[in-house]
Amino acid sequence: MPSDPTTSHDLKDACVVAAHAVIVEHGIEKLSLRDVARKLNVSHQAPYKHYPSRDHLLAEVIRRCFKQFALTLDSRTRHAVPLDDLHSLGHSYLRYALEHPLEYRLMFGTPWPNVEADAGLLVDARHAFGVLQAALEPLYAGQGISHETQEADALFIWSSMHGLATILQSQVMNHLALSEAVRTGAVQHVMQMVDSALLQRLGAARHLHN
Amino acid sequence: MPSDPTTSHDLKDACVVAAHAVIVEHGIEKLSLRDVARKLNVSHQAPYKHYPSRDHLLAEVIRRCFKQFALTLDSRTRHAVPLDDLHSLGHSYLRYALEHPLEYRLMFGTPWPNVEADAGLLVDARHAFGVLQAALEPLYAGQGISHETQEADALFIWSSMHGLATILQSQVMNHLALSEAVRTGAVQHVMQMVDSALLQRLGAARHLHN
Repeated sequence: MPSDPTTSHDLKDACVVAAHAVIVEHGIEKLSLRDVARKLNVSHQAPYKHYPSRDHLLAEVIRRCFKQFALTLDSRTRHAVPLDDLHSLGHSYLRYALEHPLEYRLMFGTPWPNVEADAGLLVDARHAFGVLQAALEPLYAGQGISHETQEADALFIWSSMHGLATILQSQVMNHLALSEAVRTGAVQHVMQMVDSALLQRLGAARHLHN
Repeated sequence: MPSDPTTSHDLKDACVVAAHAVIVEHGIEKLSLRDVARKLNVSHQAPYKHYPSRDHLLAEVIRRCFKQFALTLDSRTRHAVPLDDLHSLGHSYLRYALEHPLEYRLMFGTPWPNVEADAGLLVDARHAFGVLQAALEPLYAGQGISHETQEADALFIWSSMHGLATILQSQVMNHLALSEAVRTGAVQHVMQMVDSALLQRLGAARHLHN
């Protein structure tokens, strides 16, 4: 909690921090502007100055998760070889998911609030997916692969990484009777299989155009 | 709620049904044997006859999800062509996830209770993964692919389908600026990419052994 949430700008930020705390303590369903106000020791009406509804505050919480998430992905170690860069992106993605399970769940594991009015959330969510699309671009550059195929392939990469992230977060994999080598090599293996599918795409494109 | 939960066997089942209802209403964190007893109009002590703790009841709830899930996968339309059968399995998997979001989340999206004492949950969870391994078996039969590689590939298939299932469940995909064709073709496309990686594996195995 900031030391003095009475100034307007501070209160806007403080509400996001308090909302986070309420979600950690009571779950996302229980988030209310009333609880946030109580946590901040301000009047029940105060948060409404910045957030017309509980859903607007929740949208802002999730938007900031996407913003931080995209920043993390953007600040990955870069590689000139496109597949190496995609691996680096994958590792950043998985690390973020494992280190920020709550934020990850807010972005991808819970129903979004009604966001018709909140374009900011959409912009930041799309930017995060855009990081993946941009990383795929150099691999496919000049191969005559359609924009739609690139989008669909990005969705495939995301499905695999998202699935892996949530499997690694849950304990289910530990409970399956998998051999130790498979368990410890899972990330590497899934990335190799994704590579394999992408390289097939490139091979097919070359075959088509030669 | 069954009409008369006073007989011992009925009470055991009724507790599972009531636990489900408590989870739907209040979330998994709030599940307690006390709430279950209240819901069933039995004494607070009654559920303890069958479940030594709240975690044992939760383990039983999740075990039954896995059991029903594996039955659904087992009763898919079968195909003689291995890749067709894997697709059929994938569609069954995704349909189950979309039609039973709560059960799916209990199995794969929430921390399991302490199950050291509950071998039943492990058996049924492993059986569900075993369905996938069994479906992959005919594709790899006689190709000289190691058991470890088969396990790891099954994990890759599962990651992709699990990721896709949770992406389809959430609304995130609807909010990305994806073209309509990519959105509607996502399932088909991800399955084709998985196929592509599996076929590469077979090609590499043949290359190695010829």
